[in-house]
Amino acid sequence: MPEKTRATVRGPYRTGIRRREQLVAAAIEVFAEHGYAGGSLRAIAEHAGVSHASLIQHFGSKEGLLTAVLEEWDRRTVQDGLADISGLDYFRRLPEVMAAHQDNRGLLELFTTIAAEASSPLHPAHGFIVRRYATNLATLADHLRQARAAGDIAAMSDAQIDIEVRLVTAALDGIGLQWLLDPSTDVAASVSTYVERAIASWVSGRGDDRR
Amino acid sequence: MPEKTRATVRGPYRTGIRRREQLVAAAIEVFAEHGYAGGSLRAIAEHAGVSHASLIQHFGSKEGLLTAVLEEWDRRTVQDGLADISGLDYFRRLPEVMAAHQDNRGLLELFTTIAAEASSPLHPAHGFIVRRYATNLATLADHLRQARAAGDIAAMSDAQIDIEVRLVTAALDGIGLQWLLDPSTDVAASVSTYVERAIASWVSGRGDDRR
Repeated sequence: MPEKTRATVRGPYRTGIRRREQLVAAAIEVFAEHGYAGGSLRAIAEHAGVSHASLIQHFGSKEGLLTAVLEEWDRRTVQDGLADISGLDYFRRLPEVMAAHQDNRGLLELFTTIAAEASSPLHPAHGFIVRRYATNLATLADHLRQARAAGDIAAMSDAQIDIEVRLVTAALDGIGLQWLLDPSTDVAASVSTYVERAIASWVSGRGDDRR
Repeated sequence: MPEKTRATVRGPYRTGIRRREQLVAAAIEVFAEHGYAGGSLRAIAEHAGVSHASLIQHFGSKEGLLTAVLEEWDRRTVQDGLADISGLDYFRRLPEVMAAHQDNRGLLELFTTIAAEASSPLHPAHGFIVRRYATNLATLADHLRQARAAGDIAAMSDAQIDIEVRLVTAALDGIGLQWLLDPSTDVAASVSTYVERAIASWVSGRGDDRR
């Protein structure tokens, strides 16, 4: 929440907000170390110095806590960079979004790990991560369809739009992982190369018989 | 090992090979379910019906067992598709490599998960995965430099080659993850779109001022 709003909040409500932020921070640390499946509510409660019952009271369930963690990630990264941006500009801003991720390494590590461990259909967050990817892909597809409707890109089938938004997402996920493994990875140059080449190809409509 | 060789092996040596294969299979299952950090040698030994000491005797350590698991993954996927292929053809074969991964879903799930969890410098396989990525990127860079030396692509700096091989790797990793999360992902079309567009760009040398 913005500082200005926070300063006007008083008493028990403010204490509740702070406590909630502390619990989310503890969850981020525990999930980052043990993964989502391995990071128990009991361990998070212990790390935050609260009771298991208090944690349930705030978030309802472990999935509720994961939702809060991912909202915090969105708040720190995606929303700031991409609010009020649409069409091709949405894609042009992705290098900035990645720069924001680099400022929040712990969260990037956490999200990368949870997404991968949740690839197993048996994982407790599988449905959650599947829905999150579907939502993100749909958002990217909306922006690409917007660019198509505006005539900013050449004709492109919906099937090809699906492929394009999957490839953009793959580039961001994959370069993020490589940066976590090797901090010398040039994230900005890699993502810019990807986005500029993709947009040039979308604009010219060349080079793909699937289009 | 090839069937022909296996058929000529007799007695205790053959039993040892079979036992080793069974242990690797058990490790794949346990790591796939609990991750690498969470999958203990004791759980793997129990799953395979052998003693902890016998597991250590075969592989030396947990990292030795992970090495054996990843060798099995390479044997089933990368080596078959990419032996004796060089230069740009190496990249053109990548859609086939991904098809092989799809035939070994458990191993893809396992590798995706271990790579992500090992992104934390505290993870026991961190150094191992960092070295594996470095080796794979170096192999891809060799093939791209080979294409450059043969005049198959336009001039490209070593820094740009680094970016290109990171992006190819990101596309493969990221599309693999999306397929694990959503089996309707068109892996072949996505990877082909990526590779064809990248090669067209390398050949023409257009569209990037970093080159």
